[in-house]
Amino acid sequence: MSDADDEIMNAVARALRSHGYADLTMQDIADESSKSKSLLHYHYDTKADLLVAFLDDLLTEYEQRIECRADQPPEQRIVDFLARFVFTPADDEREAFHLALLEMRSQGPFNDRIQTQLERSDRLLRETLAEIITDGIDDGTFEQVDPDRTAALLVAALDGARTRQITLGEANELSLDKNSVTYTRATVEELLAQIVEPILAEGGTLPDLDTTLAELDRED
Amino acid sequence: MSDADDEIMNAVARALRSHGYADLTMQDIADESSKSKSLLHYHYDTKADLLVAFLDDLLTEYEQRIECRADQPPEQRIVDFLARFVFTPADDEREAFHLALLEMRSQGPFNDRIQTQLERSDRLLRETLAEIITDGIDDGTFEQVDPDRTAALLVAALDGARTRQITLGEANELSLDKNSVTYTRATVEELLAQIVEPILAEGGTLPDLDTTLAELDRED
Repeated sequence: MSDADDEIMNAVARALRSHGYADLTMQDIADESSKSKSLLHYHYDTKADLLVAFLDDLLTEYEQRIECRADQPPEQRIVDFLARFVFTPADDEREAFHLALLEMRSQGPFNDRIQTQLERSDRLLRETLAEIITDGIDDGTFEQVDPDRTAALLVAALDGARTRQITLGEANELSLDKNSVTYTRATVEELLAQIVEPILAEGGTLPDLDTTLAELDRED
Repeated sequence: MSDADDEIMNAVARALRSHGYADLTMQDIADESSKSKSLLHYHYDTKADLLVAFLDDLLTEYEQRIECRADQPPEQRIVDFLARFVFTPADDEREAFHLALLEMRSQGPFNDRIQTQLERSDRLLRETLAEIITDGIDDGTFEQVDPDRTAALLVAALDGARTRQITLGEANELSLDKNSVTYTRATVEELLAQIVEPILAEGGTLPDLDTTLAELDRED
């Protein structure tokens, strides 16, 4: 991806955060970049074309980030995967961004090209997780489980936690064990304790979530 | 709720299914009912007022349905709770309705009254589940677990499965064990097997999912 494309995609992300999906205009995106609206239209016929290119870019970037950590052992890769879904209480920009994506997702059934990207995203997430679990079964890290079924469950739980995180406002801070925990963090902690820990082969231990979050933070 | 209110709420549901949330007008709702647009405005100042009343009604109805089965044992109540989230491949109207709700949810952070209803919904779901689990711990059905944490995990997973079910189009049918299973059904099966079964006290068994689905179907 060229520097120019990169700049446009960053402008789309900023414009989505500020305006949401439904009300977004090409002018809003142009306002966030050094490009004119007519130049944007020269590269991307319609707003829909630009947003589909944006989703495509987002998924490609996600694929690359996952590949960067592919040399880690399976138990670290699965904690990485889950940790990327944790929002801290201060993640306001990230919440605004995912809220716009949620709006866009609700248009999937009415727009074939958006839906194609949503399907690609779903497949990517489930296949990445299934591959981590399969690698872990093969090298003795995990017990025998159905990788595809476990992957679907984890993806559903992470997706639901994120949706509640971004739509609930201040109520996305849950009071658990007398502590305040974000919805995504609570869910990831429970998935690790109730789904991932139980499939660890005897004697195995999971990497610490906070240590992993700090490592991912340094890489971004 | 009066018959007139009931009729209006049914009209809102139909209008949401046909038009989605963002583009919905008071006229669309009037077109689905025997009331005029001006009569709707007499009872509800704005579209937002009517939609908030609709959410309120939806939650109250859900509370009542849960209470109807409150005399069942905890293991049946938890399977009931999960089973209500299963979509069959033919649930097109239900998918359209929840898609409109998803669109509405993405507006939560911009509309205090919608957000208040979302918070009420989240609390209702988590508290209902936590109560079932607590009752089950008290009467020896379930092992000792943290009811609030398990409830948050189950609600997140059910929510995410539903969002993927309604946004993915035909890709919401997952190929698992060489069978085709809806995203919601796959998730509910895994939650039962991986979260609920493991907390059953020794010798306990879970009610069958298909039998439960048939029972709920008869009651609706």
